[in-house]
Amino acid sequence: MVHSGSDDDDVPAAMTMQGGTRVSAAARSVDLNCDVGEGFGRWSGGDDAALLKLVTSANVACGFHAGDPSIMRSTCALAAERGVVIGAQVGYRDLAGFGRRFIDMAPGELRDDIVYQIGALDGFARIAGTSVRYVKPHGALYNAIVDNTEQASAVVEAITRYDRGLAALGLPGSEFLRLAAAAGLRTVEEAFADRAYTGDGHLVSRHRAHAVIDDPVEVARRCVRMLTGGIVEAIDGSLVTMRPDSICVHGDTVGAVEIARGVRVALTAAGVTLRPFA
Amino acid sequence: MVHSGSDDDDVPAAMTMQGGTRVSAAARSVDLNCDVGEGFGRWSGGDDAALLKLVTSANVACGFHAGDPSIMRSTCALAAERGVVIGAQVGYRDLAGFGRRFIDMAPGELRDDIVYQIGALDGFARIAGTSVRYVKPHGALYNAIVDNTEQASAVVEAITRYDRGLAALGLPGSEFLRLAAAAGLRTVEEAFADRAYTGDGHLVSRHRAHAVIDDPVEVARRCVRMLTGGIVEAIDGSLVTMRPDSICVHGDTVGAVEIARGVRVALTAAGVTLRPFA
Amino acid sequence: MVHSGSDDDDVPAAMTMQGGTRVSAAARSVDLNCDVGEGFGRWSGGDDAALLKLVTSANVACGFHAGDPSIMRSTCALAAERGVVIGAQVGYRDLAGFGRRFIDMAPGELRDDIVYQIGALDGFARIAGTSVRYVKPHGALYNAIVDNTEQASAVVEAITRYDRGLAALGLPGSEFLRLAAAAGLRTVEEAFADRAYTGDGHLVSRHRAHAVIDDPVEVARRCVRMLTGGIVEAIDGSLVTMRPDSICVHGDTVGAVEIARGVRVALTAAGVTLRPFA
Amino acid sequence: MVHSGSDDDDVPAAMTMQGGTRVSAAARSVDLNCDVGEGFGRWSGGDDAALLKLVTSANVACGFHAGDPSIMRSTCALAAERGVVIGAQVGYRDLAGFGRRFIDMAPGELRDDIVYQIGALDGFARIAGTSVRYVKPHGALYNAIVDNTEQASAVVEAITRYDRGLAALGLPGSEFLRLAAAAGLRTVEEAFADRAYTGDGHLVSRHRAHAVIDDPVEVARRCVRMLTGGIVEAIDGSLVTMRPDSICVHGDTVGAVEIARGVRVALTAAGVTLRPFA
Repeated sequence: MVHSGSDDDDVPAAMTMQGGTRVSAAARSVDLNCDVGEGFGRWSGGDDAALLKLVTSANVACGFHAGDPSIMRSTCALAAERGVVIGAQVGYRDLAGFGRRFIDMAPGELRDDIVYQIGALDGFARIAGTSVRYVKPHGALYNAIVDNTEQASAVVEAITRYDRGLAALGLPGSEFLRLAAAAGLRTVEEAFADRAYTGDGHLVSRHRAHAVIDDPVEVARRCVRMLTGGIVEAIDGSLVTMRPDSICVHGDTVGAVEIARGVRVALTAAGVTLRPFA
Repeated sequence: MVHSGSDDDDVPAAMTMQGGTRVSAAARSVDLNCDVGEGFGRWSGGDDAALLKLVTSANVACGFHAGDPSIMRSTCALAAERGVVIGAQVGYRDLAGFGRRFIDMAPGELRDDIVYQIGALDGFARIAGTSVRYVKPHGALYNAIVDNTEQASAVVEAITRYDRGLAALGLPGSEFLRLAAAAGLRTVEEAFADRAYTGDGHLVSRHRAHAVIDDPVEVARRCVRMLTGGIVEAIDGSLVTMRPDSICVHGDTVGAVEIARGVRVALTAAGVTLRPFA
Repeated sequence: MVHSGSDDDDVPAAMTMQGGTRVSAAARSVDLNCDVGEGFGRWSGGDDAALLKLVTSANVACGFHAGDPSIMRSTCALAAERGVVIGAQVGYRDLAGFGRRFIDMAPGELRDDIVYQIGALDGFARIAGTSVRYVKPHGALYNAIVDNTEQASAVVEAITRYDRGLAALGLPGSEFLRLAAAAGLRTVEEAFADRAYTGDGHLVSRHRAHAVIDDPVEVARRCVRMLTGGIVEAIDGSLVTMRPDSICVHGDTVGAVEIARGVRVALTAAGVTLRPFA
Repeated sequence: MVHSGSDDDDVPAAMTMQGGTRVSAAARSVDLNCDVGEGFGRWSGGDDAALLKLVTSANVACGFHAGDPSIMRSTCALAAERGVVIGAQVGYRDLAGFGRRFIDMAPGELRDDIVYQIGALDGFARIAGTSVRYVKPHGALYNAIVDNTEQASAVVEAITRYDRGLAALGLPGSEFLRLAAAAGLRTVEEAFADRAYTGDGHLVSRHRAHAVIDDPVEVARRCVRMLTGGIVEAIDGSLVTMRPDSICVHGDTVGAVEIARGVRVALTAAGVTLRPFA
């Protein structure tokens, strides 16, 4: 759920776990976010041009784990042209590891690295006629700040110092979102379209079988159920409450575009409006 | 001279080359700029804390040739605290070469690298309660855009796209300042306190003897003569017209602080007001 | 031609420009080289696994323009397993520019950068049970040392200091090969399978039309003619003498594998033995 | 103690903890190691020229946490000239953090990063007429492999794959030295000249008071006691057995040279021969 100061639970009380319950189009909307701009120099990332036709929010890499200035410029330009909201996908300074390796940094250094990345991206958003609207940590940093309070606090401090108007996009229940909310930031909870969940609502580790769902139809079906029913079926068969403000589709997997398109089409058909949260 | 749109030559006609001619304090002011924040990680640059007590404009390194996010943050904070104006000291992406090696980049890539650096620094200026006010290219880039029109144009385009309110600080007569002025940017011409000039007003190459003047008294004397007389004695003994808007003192040479202090004291004593151009 | 001290022109006098002239298999052999290992971190380069089944020499990127330690290790292991000779594909320190931008480095710094890269790759060749046998400069460095004597000399000095037993692979007529030969190194001249030549035997600039030949059949036909006839048809229709010791096939273009396979098949069918020069 | 296959305990039985017990010069020798080459580009590290007159083994940075190719070349040349043995001071790829931040890398990637660094340095040792003789991990990696078995194993695997003749220099009791010995590598245990120890022989954390001893006389006195008495006084006043094969003096602290000189003079005066272990 989106929390913003005086909070507001916009989920109708009637939306209980009754499986097929369908809510009216007016009752529900959701954001669709995706990582983009994750190439570097001669190397490219996903099919950003196609993805930016489908999502409503773009997590643009800022040069530390991926993304170079020219990619950042063209990605922001394309996002702005299509009305896709730009967020800073910030990560550890680790190009060789694509930001997927935890770095035990001092919180102050991490905070400064985050400010640097947001500022750099904001320049490109500015010349594209818009501005950075939110921050979504990437990779190992995303995972670390689920429960690493020090690093989570560093990211929150970077955002609040840079611009209190930026939203924090992250995992429901994470230290990151808890501290962001406590600091007065708008928080946006996301669900993963193609990831399996455990019975208590956590992500199934990628190292386990069936952690990633690669059937586009099944992915779309799950997203519709989350948005219209407020639930997702866990890997153990149980039903878990899941009312995301944003759904994350992956940009770099095989069939990423197909999956994103499927989610978009299915949600729209189910009466869910796709629109950016910011 | 500072040019800004309908600008004009504000040097009184009476200020001819008569050596000892003294102008009144009211008639003349100048900016004093210096490179700062040029460390990286565990390595430090010059004595920034001392220099930021002496100069009026700080050219802060932005992470491509030197400077890391934590150094950028603390340098901006210190500059802001002391009322020193912050400029983006942008350079080639070349940490190993300290930005002192020409890189034959495509203009579009260079433009994007410059936007990235300005934006990143602007974030730290923002959290220090101020903003980047000007751009000064560094090292090999500074030298390249004296006559490399393509790269000069790329830097100017970066500035105009990012913020037309930023001034361009550079070498008088350079392609950079010519194109910046043509693009409607405010241009600021600088002289070097401790560098020898040729009879036609160019810098004597560092590879030649006596290219750098290291006697603080002589450096100060030359600065006073530029500001009160509008001239500097060239290496061949001739007198060259020199009416800088800003004087650059170096931050990383032996005795840098002493030289900067000498220049400041001597100029002030000569009735020249030291104040930022921006 | 391969030059090595007492030189040896192994091209029979009878091999004159008569188009269809066919030489016996015994009379001619050639090396086939290709750039490999040009990914970085999560980003991959060409289809190395397929290419290493086709070429006889592998130009392995060493981490400065592309290639990371894990890619270097696996690439060397695969090359060694298939009997493909390993060469150090050395470049400027420019990951963002993929080594395709000239850097005006001091010769001593360039020499040291080259030694570093050769040594690093040699470690992986060693653990794969072999060793680096030659050096082929990459990208902008390759082009620079065609006529930049200072940088060419720096590369040659790096090789001679590291190991006089290493061969130098480069462009016929380049300063690089001239200086390498003068220093007593074995030199290996290469032709490009898919590049057009001017009437005086130079490469047609990539910025011109028809600079790259992308029809696999035509590429193969040209290679056969070079090896069996000692000539290549220039872009202006004239015939140019071309007796390469090695033919370079590109690894990162669309259809790279198909082109390499075509060249291999056609040369073998024409009686040319494919074998490494080193 | 140095362990090497059929090794043996060369410490005379008579050397018990009797405080002032003095052993004859013939009975004891020790190595003195120091980090050198820890600059990067324009930034310099410690006073290597002075330190390389005092130590017997040089831990040369390999470019990942510090050190660039030109620094590596000149450092190896100077070490070789003075008969100082060269070791590879390998670290995490983290120039911004000077290798002082733990990175949670996959063991295979770490192993490859280590091989890369050893190989690169070995090239410079080779052109200096010698070769790398040992490996000493740096900073956060040094600390991690005290008890991180996976990463310790990765470092050991890198060494054994590269050259089984290289010694492993590290902390007594560490996983690193345990696994190195198990893999058949020669292990070399070091003590820190200027660091305080706990009663059970561990280093006192740098975050605690009195963790570093900065009085050169006291540092020298402790080293003499270790080498002649086999003990060191712990921070709690107890006596701890300490029979190092090598003593590490720091190169980048204030007074580093003075401390190294003091240790050298005092040990020599006490009849301890300073000589490299490798």
